[in-house]
Amino acid sequence: MPVITLVTDFGETDEYVGLMKGVILSVNPTAQIIDINHHIEPQDLHQAARTIEASYQYFPEGAIHVVVVDPGVGSQRDILVLQTQNYFFLAPNNGVLSLIIENESFVSVHQVSNQEFFRHPVSNTFHGRDIFAPVAGHLSLGISPRQFGSPQSLENVVRLTDVKAQRTTSGLLIGEVIVVDRFGNLITNITQQELAAYLQSRGGHMPKFLIGDEAINGLMTHYADVENSMPLAVIGSRGLVEIAINKGSAAAKFKVVKGDRVKVMVA
Amino acid sequence: MPVITLVTDFGETDEYVGLMKGVILSVNPTAQIIDINHHIEPQDLHQAARTIEASYQYFPEGAIHVVVVDPGVGSQRDILVLQTQNYFFLAPNNGVLSLIIENESFVSVHQVSNQEFFRHPVSNTFHGRDIFAPVAGHLSLGISPRQFGSPQSLENVVRLTDVKAQRTTSGLLIGEVIVVDRFGNLITNITQQELAAYLQSRGGHMPKFLIGDEAINGLMTHYADVENSMPLAVIGSRGLVEIAINKGSAAAKFKVVKGDRVKVMVA
Amino acid sequence: MPVITLVTDFGETDEYVGLMKGVILSVNPTAQIIDINHHIEPQDLHQAARTIEASYQYFPEGAIHVVVVDPGVGSQRDILVLQTQNYFFLAPNNGVLSLIIENESFVSVHQVSNQEFFRHPVSNTFHGRDIFAPVAGHLSLGISPRQFGSPQSLENVVRLTDVKAQRTTSGLLIGEVIVVDRFGNLITNITQQELAAYLQSRGGHMPKFLIGDEAINGLMTHYADVENSMPLAVIGSRGLVEIAINKGSAAAKFKVVKGDRVKVMVA
Repeated sequence: MPVITLVTDFGETDEYVGLMKGVILSVNPTAQIIDINHHIEPQDLHQAARTIEASYQYFPEGAIHVVVVDPGVGSQRDILVLQTQNYFFLAPNNGVLSLIIENESFVSVHQVSNQEFFRHPVSNTFHGRDIFAPVAGHLSLGISPRQFGSPQSLENVVRLTDVKAQRTTSGLLIGEVIVVDRFGNLITNITQQELAAYLQSRGGHMPKFLIGDEAINGLMTHYADVENSMPLAVIGSRGLVEIAINKGSAAAKFKVVKGDRVKVMVA
Repeated sequence: MPVITLVTDFGETDEYVGLMKGVILSVNPTAQIIDINHHIEPQDLHQAARTIEASYQYFPEGAIHVVVVDPGVGSQRDILVLQTQNYFFLAPNNGVLSLIIENESFVSVHQVSNQEFFRHPVSNTFHGRDIFAPVAGHLSLGISPRQFGSPQSLENVVRLTDVKAQRTTSGLLIGEVIVVDRFGNLITNITQQELAAYLQSRGGHMPKFLIGDEAINGLMTHYADVENSMPLAVIGSRGLVEIAINKGSAAAKFKVVKGDRVKVMVA
Repeated sequence: MPVITLVTDFGETDEYVGLMKGVILSVNPTAQIIDINHHIEPQDLHQAARTIEASYQYFPEGAIHVVVVDPGVGSQRDILVLQTQNYFFLAPNNGVLSLIIENESFVSVHQVSNQEFFRHPVSNTFHGRDIFAPVAGHLSLGISPRQFGSPQSLENVVRLTDVKAQRTTSGLLIGEVIVVDRFGNLITNITQQELAAYLQSRGGHMPKFLIGDEAINGLMTHYADVENSMPLAVIGSRGLVEIAINKGSAAAKFKVVKGDRVKVMVA
């Protein structure tokens, strides 16, 4: 049973996701379809890129990851299928695969243009249903990516800028809050590796995090390393620096929202 | 693996949908259950009728479509199973299948009254779990609709009124906004066919849409046919007239809500 | 196809639930994963306990019920697997299985400590992905609970207090609203059995319910037993007293929220 995953900005109050599943099952009745996240902010390419990066490797080998965050639907943007050693990725060529490209070694990149595999008539506004879903279904049947269109150079795959934390000339590491999760945890775009390299380059061991009006010293390993209602920084389950309150909401306490800056210095 | 789809007004913050799935799988462990939409406004029969119409044909042949929007649960309203050439529909006889009846040619209509196929004890308030789910499970096992109750005349199936756009004596075509989707697109109940027939009858080619205080001339084929942040009218993925803003929210800009009127005249 | 159910407080706006499913399928590609409720209020052990109690018996024999509402994640709290005649339960030992323990006769209780079945590296903040999901996957492959860790006494399973309705010395039965559902129905923690025993002990037949400033006499059997927009009390689909408005919202009319008291006396 091949696994097909979905990341979209469709939400769940319309029938859009359901229709994609119906079309996939019409092509391959044995597909197992898993929702990763349908609540990407409308047309937020950065969030889509980070979500698929945080998710893809937790699925079985051979999984087909479909990302439909597609502000250019109906225009001339390309759709691509990327094959890596273990996975397939199907997405518009708009940057949502930026972080996948950095992590994975690629077997192939192909354009998706062969209308034989589309659902007809193809709507101008809902390629999720009429192109992405049937192509994913056919991929899950074992059809080779080269059947879908011409091979492409990896250099032609669009990359997003401003996705990663940056060092300033004054010696700070500057990241941002990329997710405020349901518990009020503030997940940043600062990776464990970037933080370690930054500290080493500055000859320090203990980081100090500045967020809103707060300063937090050091990295804990568990939420429970501090008292209830106290703030802490921790490497979260994505391998990213996360600002949290033990049994509380950091977002509420610090009045921080997605996109706000987090500064790091040596304590 | 037979497909069973669900349209309900149960939302996703309670366990109601999960229980329906548990009961279905208890009857038929191989059923593949797909959510179409659980966010129908509570007891909104029109929205339920439009959702199942917009969805059913995207599923594999043999799919069993279950609609549980059921203000009369526990009262004497009937439950029906309708069989068409390609699909089954299971729903209360309250109008939610109004638009299916217009589109499909029916093989049979049966009442669902044979308690042998219900889950016991049958709650008075949750027939989704105790009647719809187990009956859908049994249908998916191949049990014939005539096993569930007596045959019914198609004339006895309740029809909703006020579902479709209307022409006025003054020569306008009047529709309404039936869905404001997550992107702020305003989906109307005016079909592509109705619009074409209206224009032809008025001897015109280009429509003019009046919505809120705005007037929009002509029909585009893609969102990207206008500049960013500009409004347009387009035939959306449902085959319905849709008012949108390219890379923006028409609902926010026009301050329009579900139920508001859209007037069409010849430009 | 073994069924694995999920109750969490993860919500659906992050990828957390999707990752648990990916890990489960990586262990057992044939698992059928069903969402019961991911909208438990963050860290609300009482709601989690009531949700799994209201749900578990509607699933096929052999189902594996996983509850991840886990404020102590990363601390020294235990994780348990409980086996009953028909089901498995996998949860932190924090009280979320309180009501299961009262209902079911147990075959065994085991600690989950054998790291061989975990996903590595184990995050300190997301045991749902790294412990609960892979352990559930292995359970679904038929691995015996005793492979996961040492047997435990049922007495060591944490029980929540204040879960049930209480009788006062002045002769009232006092419950609380535990769920306000999407329709505005007020579901209380007063069971049909408790209500019957209370009435019998007071020598009465007809209950009177006091909620907010309202008094409601008697128990109806259907919503439709009263006129539209009129209040009623009914035994709901969970076997619990429920305050409702026929075709309306009791929550809106009575301005009642979760946690508010409901008093019962003899009418």
